Amino acid sequence: MAKTTKKPSTYLYPAPVILVTCGVEKPNIITLAWVGTVCSDPPMVSIAVRQERHSHQLIEETGQFVVNIPGEELLKATDYCGQVSGREVDKFTATGLTPEPASEVKPPLIAECHVNMECLVRQKLELGVHDLFLGEVVAVHIDEKVLEESGRRVDYSRARPFVLTFGEYRGLGDALGNYGFSVKG
Amino acid sequence: MAKTTKKPSTYLYPAPVILVTCGVEKPNIITLAWVGTVCSDPPMVSIAVRQERHSHQLIEETGQFVVNIPGEELLKATDYCGQVSGREVDKFTATGLTPEPASEVKPPLIAECHVNMECLVRQKLELGVHDLFLGEVVAVHIDEKVLEESGRRVDYSRARPFVLTFGEYRGLGDALGNYGFSVKG
Repeated sequence: MAKTTKKPSTYLYPAPVILVTCGVEKPNIITLAWVGTVCSDPPMVSIAVRQERHSHQLIEETGQFVVNIPGEELLKATDYCGQVSGREVDKFTATGLTPEPASEVKPPLIAECHVNMECLVRQKLELGVHDLFLGEVVAVHIDEKVLEESGRRVDYSRARPFVLTFGEYRGLGDALGNYGFSVKG
Repeated sequence: MAKTTKKPSTYLYPAPVILVTCGVEKPNIITLAWVGTVCSDPPMVSIAVRQERHSHQLIEETGQFVVNIPGEELLKATDYCGQVSGREVDKFTATGLTPEPASEVKPPLIAECHVNMECLVRQKLELGVHDLFLGEVVAVHIDEKVLEESGRRVDYSRARPFVLTFGEYRGLGDALGNYGFSVKG
């Protein structure tokens, strides 16, 4: 397989696309894709945020944020929240997304997102142009309409999450197999 | 939207699925999904690895690893490398995946993966059951067959990456829109 060598850069794909809410009096929404789970116990996520972003300041001030996972029906609002600054625009008003009170933190949840994860900042790492906030998940809310009948997990065909590749959003395709299928026959 | 509240846990989805290579004399492959980009300059990725994993020890010893991104044609090998331990199995032999020399680090690349990112460990964070390794990307290799004609970016329809949701692998669907479409009309 012939390969070409590129300048070191961020080629890891695909990335989940989430909406992070932060701030209290004038809460803001920021769209992020450089995020991920970093520990299962305690449950923790990481979000990378550029220092100059309005949301960076809000997260620093409160030490709290909420991860809200949108479905495809929120694609346009999600893209918009990554394009404009909360310094200039009230993104809840501009998108019509609805803030609702969280249970353990001060920033609001986004009502229209299927999953909301309330987080407390445990560490901030200054890595370069991005700072990495590590948040412990302290409460999770899931839209009952996207839960499987067992109530145990999300039905992704209904939740319809999407990813960001290089400059492009994509939905998910069909299920390819269950985790562990290679050794379970 | 009626929501149910869950015990705090790791609900962030979907997660990219990658193969990490590590070690030198007897290199190993570990399948990971709790990974992500954490900084663009310097380009950095994070990978969460449980302390008891064989690969954890190998990454600690060398301070180096390689992120290899598989396509759907490697789904079974990818699942397998997440199910068995390198203490017991030579996963290159078992899967038929081909190790090839990296340019800047000692662990091998996986030839069959479309993208290889060579990484140097810059930090290790002990978060709980997982440790988080932060790696700086020092070299990137891309299969010419999945590069767009411009040579600038990967054609994901050809590279066919896949994600892990709760216990299930899924491919990607169609493109939904370009980053920034909401403000560009």
